[in-house]
Amino acid sequence: MTVQSKSAVPTIGVFDSGFGGLTVLRALIEQLPRARFVFLGDSARLPYGSKSRRTVARYAVESAQFLVREQGAEFLVIACNSASALALDAIQEAVPVPVLGVIEPGAETARAVSRTGDVLVVATEATVQSHAYAAACHARGLRALEKACPLLVPLVEEGWTNHPVTAQVIDVYLKELRAEAAAQNLNPDTLVLGCTHYPLLRPLFEGAVRPGVRIIDSAEAVAQAAARVFDGSAAATTGGGSSAETEVHCFATDSVEKFERLGSRFLNRPVGRVQLIDLGG
Amino acid sequence: MTVQSKSAVPTIGVFDSGFGGLTVLRALIEQLPRARFVFLGDSARLPYGSKSRRTVARYAVESAQFLVREQGAEFLVIACNSASALALDAIQEAVPVPVLGVIEPGAETARAVSRTGDVLVVATEATVQSHAYAAACHARGLRALEKACPLLVPLVEEGWTNHPVTAQVIDVYLKELRAEAAAQNLNPDTLVLGCTHYPLLRPLFEGAVRPGVRIIDSAEAVAQAAARVFDGSAAATTGGGSSAETEVHCFATDSVEKFERLGSRFLNRPVGRVQLIDLGG
Repeated sequence: MTVQSKSAVPTIGVFDSGFGGLTVLRALIEQLPRARFVFLGDSARLPYGSKSRRTVARYAVESAQFLVREQGAEFLVIACNSASALALDAIQEAVPVPVLGVIEPGAETARAVSRTGDVLVVATEATVQSHAYAAACHARGLRALEKACPLLVPLVEEGWTNHPVTAQVIDVYLKELRAEAAAQNLNPDTLVLGCTHYPLLRPLFEGAVRPGVRIIDSAEAVAQAAARVFDGSAAATTGGGSSAETEVHCFATDSVEKFERLGSRFLNRPVGRVQLIDLGG
Repeated sequence: MTVQSKSAVPTIGVFDSGFGGLTVLRALIEQLPRARFVFLGDSARLPYGSKSRRTVARYAVESAQFLVREQGAEFLVIACNSASALALDAIQEAVPVPVLGVIEPGAETARAVSRTGDVLVVATEATVQSHAYAAACHARGLRALEKACPLLVPLVEEGWTNHPVTAQVIDVYLKELRAEAAAQNLNPDTLVLGCTHYPLLRPLFEGAVRPGVRIIDSAEAVAQAAARVFDGSAAATTGGGSSAETEVHCFATDSVEKFERLGSRFLNRPVGRVQLIDLGG
């Protein structure tokens, strides 16, 4: 995959159902500080993670079209595991620019680090039901066991990223996952965080996994894959520039105030002014 | 408020953003076993509780119009605290039938049972931000202190209605609420469950409140208010009939499978076949 930008600085569209995808944007800015980023959070219709393929695809296509047609994005990163799992093909058909989802880069990183070939994946209900990670891992010779963890997104959005209740919830989910892995004679050494909210829980996951288990952040994995696409272009780190100066424009379909308030926690810097848009949904 | 039904059996439309409102439908069926019920869960766009007034009103009006125009509802119950708090006026303007929300009946029941006149309300973020309960309580000479509890809906939907983690979360929320009440010199003796998911957590709330504190379920309160509207009509209990035979039709905008699977837990009987509809959102 290569991208020919019309200008020296490519415009990269980043899309999520809410603002969890700002963890992906943060990783992208670190990799490509000289690119121009337009981010859309479809917050009026979040969460995608509990909805059907048909509904997620319709919402995601409308969002992708906004970024390409109205904001001039020349490359799209789907910073939402549920949309990547359920709607990547539909999005790619609907827009004339390259589209990168989070699932394939996450599976690719798992392949690179796993020695046993057995991988655990934690994600939303929709991502798990799609079995997109299992398929992407299987295509790389890995065995993957997936588990839906629907309480983790609300816990992150409540700000309980370092709360004993959240640690207990992670413990419950991982115990169930390990029991299922043992029942299937798997010997997992890798855990994929298959939701863009979960990087904020990484310290708790690190405290909860067995020694030697490597944790893979799908946000970092997709940013590294995007950096390879733009390798050698002016957008890449080698072109110089500081991530503090990276041009970022944020759009949301609802709750601009909430986006601005919570977004900085995910982006790890102020999100600036967020523009409200209407996708008619 | 009185309703003249064209037929002997009135059609009552019940609307929620998801299936939490089935707890209201359950209470309505007990009060009005001979009515015909049409229930719509706008599950493609849930949750309303974290969204803005403008977005909630648009979604709720479309849902109400479906129940009245296409399903012939002669009376509407808004079985969703967020929609009642943010969009009751917009709904009433948009449809030509009487509309009953959950807030006023909840506040009315609080007035009837509270001796100190100080009331605590737990609800979603949107309901609390609207201060609809505070206003309804104030209009009845009560002082109300409201608290958003955004983790409780996901915990109910995960099925953790009797889980130690849920008990801890309720404990955290109630401790914060009591500290705030003490700081304001309030002496609350009543707790309003201002979200239609919370009746499933009633046993945990009963274990967590101070002795003597009465718990008010807004689902029961609105069902009693609806029963008074139909008092003396063929729909009321006095007209005979068993709730097991009550005619109920359910519609959803997404996740029919999930609705059918989880819905019976809220309705306390099978929900039957749920029809998928498209409101174009």
